[in-house]
Amino acid sequence: MPVYEDPVDGVTVPVGALQALATGIVEALGTPSDIAADVAEVLVASDRRGIASHGTARLPDYAALVEAGVLDPAGRPVLASARPALGRFDARNGWGHHAGRVAVDWAIDAARAQGMATAVVGHSNHYGIAGWYALRAADAGLIGISLTNTSPVVAPTRAIDPLIGTNPIAIAAPAGRWGVFCLDMATSTVPRGRIEVAARRGESIPVGWAIDEEGRPATTPDAALRGALQPLGGGEATAGYKGYGLALAIDLITGVLTGSTYGPNVVPLFSTHAGPSDVAQTYMAIDPAAVDDGDAFVRRVEGYFDQLAAARTMPDAPGRVLIPGEPEAEAERRTAARGIVMDPVHATTLAGLADRLGVAVPYRPPGAG
Amino acid sequence: MPVYEDPVDGVTVPVGALQALATGIVEALGTPSDIAADVAEVLVASDRRGIASHGTARLPDYAALVEAGVLDPAGRPVLASARPALGRFDARNGWGHHAGRVAVDWAIDAARAQGMATAVVGHSNHYGIAGWYALRAADAGLIGISLTNTSPVVAPTRAIDPLIGTNPIAIAAPAGRWGVFCLDMATSTVPRGRIEVAARRGESIPVGWAIDEEGRPATTPDAALRGALQPLGGGEATAGYKGYGLALAIDLITGVLTGSTYGPNVVPLFSTHAGPSDVAQTYMAIDPAAVDDGDAFVRRVEGYFDQLAAARTMPDAPGRVLIPGEPEAEAERRTAARGIVMDPVHATTLAGLADRLGVAVPYRPPGAG
Repeated sequence: MPVYEDPVDGVTVPVGALQALATGIVEALGTPSDIAADVAEVLVASDRRGIASHGTARLPDYAALVEAGVLDPAGRPVLASARPALGRFDARNGWGHHAGRVAVDWAIDAARAQGMATAVVGHSNHYGIAGWYALRAADAGLIGISLTNTSPVVAPTRAIDPLIGTNPIAIAAPAGRWGVFCLDMATSTVPRGRIEVAARRGESIPVGWAIDEEGRPATTPDAALRGALQPLGGGEATAGYKGYGLALAIDLITGVLTGSTYGPNVVPLFSTHAGPSDVAQTYMAIDPAAVDDGDAFVRRVEGYFDQLAAARTMPDAPGRVLIPGEPEAEAERRTAARGIVMDPVHATTLAGLADRLGVAVPYRPPGAG
Repeated sequence: MPVYEDPVDGVTVPVGALQALATGIVEALGTPSDIAADVAEVLVASDRRGIASHGTARLPDYAALVEAGVLDPAGRPVLASARPALGRFDARNGWGHHAGRVAVDWAIDAARAQGMATAVVGHSNHYGIAGWYALRAADAGLIGISLTNTSPVVAPTRAIDPLIGTNPIAIAAPAGRWGVFCLDMATSTVPRGRIEVAARRGESIPVGWAIDEEGRPATTPDAALRGALQPLGGGEATAGYKGYGLALAIDLITGVLTGSTYGPNVVPLFSTHAGPSDVAQTYMAIDPAAVDDGDAFVRRVEGYFDQLAAARTMPDAPGRVLIPGEPEAEAERRTAARGIVMDPVHATTLAGLADRLGVAVPYRPPGAG
């Protein structure tokens, strides 16, 4: 996931205060407090990790879904059927974050008993950052995998139209001295938000990010935003069919497996008039203790990452070889020490939402008096 | 995987005859007949599916490993430990193909009982095409995943040197009218063999495939072959860190998890003097019948693929949107009907190996009398 730089004219809020605000807003929307705590935890984790696009900035969109009757704020996931290593949950159109926390915890517990386990969640909603759920397994000492399907914004190889989601995959593992390994990636080359940033900055974009309305490589953000994202790898000559194949495989293991929606049929993200999103998530947990004794796995991970960090780099490299998740962990340390720096528009919008719902705002919105 | 075109001046051999030849060669190297049957099955499957690079063309390399004492042709995998949904095998430096067949069958059986299961195989060798093992699960009605680490030929993002393998992932699922979905992809943009083909043809190569010895984008095959492959996505601007992250995650779930070798420490593929390859494989199987009744999963897959195949395509597209595995399945139908067309060099080399080992050759080698 792209770690965003802190906005220069932002509003700084302590992590705990933002979490209390988010919890209050979610509760005020009619969400039971245990569910609201999970939603706020996942959203604020995104802000803490520098991924502003998936954090509390989304609360106004979620509120609109709840207020339009599209998402059931009190919907509780049920374990619809279970084998020892495969649990199927029905999220019953509730918050994806809560259903995800419940399901990944089920997978963690089952993996401790069975060696590994999978939980699938159908009839769900947007669940924030895929990485949070994989990290939850890694924090418990397991290897975690988190998958979701999403609304169609990517053109499959050869296609002109967006027919498949950015369907992300996150994989996390405990890494000892190195903290936690956490790969959290969309299967498109870039997310749509990155093109929107280029548009605001008047920048051109590299070939491989997107195609225009006619199916040609887009080199301007405007052309890209009227067209479709490209799968990881870009065009056919640079193996974009691999990113497309990964996105399709993830759709099969999430939406198609659970009998939820998939591919071109997923409604637009945060649409308040197209009905429930009906997306799906899949979580896997693998217990290294079922393979090896003690901390042997983690010791080997440390040795491997030491080797990668010591590697000779390209002349123009901005730094050493990174381990997936390092930029996010660095952002997490920064926000823990200094608070979360909210974009002024986000700070103002969130304060307005809180005011309307009667929730106390722990900061002074920009421009207020 | 790239499906190669049949060579124009090739030698055509019926599938059964090539399989008997491969079995005979593997047995003559000191392999028990049940193990040899598995090895031949996987190698010929690669030829049948048009992936000449991973099939019987590798037999001379395997023979050299066995004859140098590097690979134990009689090594039998043992189930070293097992939880209900996680089996750990030690391949004991035997054929990776046989260990893989045994392990994926264990995962399939365990998944039928537990809903899903994983088998990890340590201290293994090269196992041919990753897709074969995923297809075995799909042929049994399950979703199959197959992962392996390999010797380092890819430069991690920012690094100059090849420090990580092309670590492929294969995912397969039953697809009813559509046959079988089978994504079988290296996590590099292209395999090294594709650059060797460009070298022989005097072609330039696109940015994103490889870097030269100095870490700059390679645009000629010669520069690329002296440098390193790039991960899927290419450079940092086009998200090559995602391909690198996937390769690293696969290393963690295979080599590192099983206590085998990994990353920069894997010996060169088919080296006869650097010791056993000590690579590792991981197999997962998920039973859709644990989630849904009857053929509901397969019916949804069919509907999805119908939608993709009907999609509007780019003006210069060579055909409709493809489903991963379609080109290989088409090659399989072709070779079943017409036999496998062997490259003349391959046909001659394989005949020479067979002669030396006292195995009957079922075709007339090119240039023989």
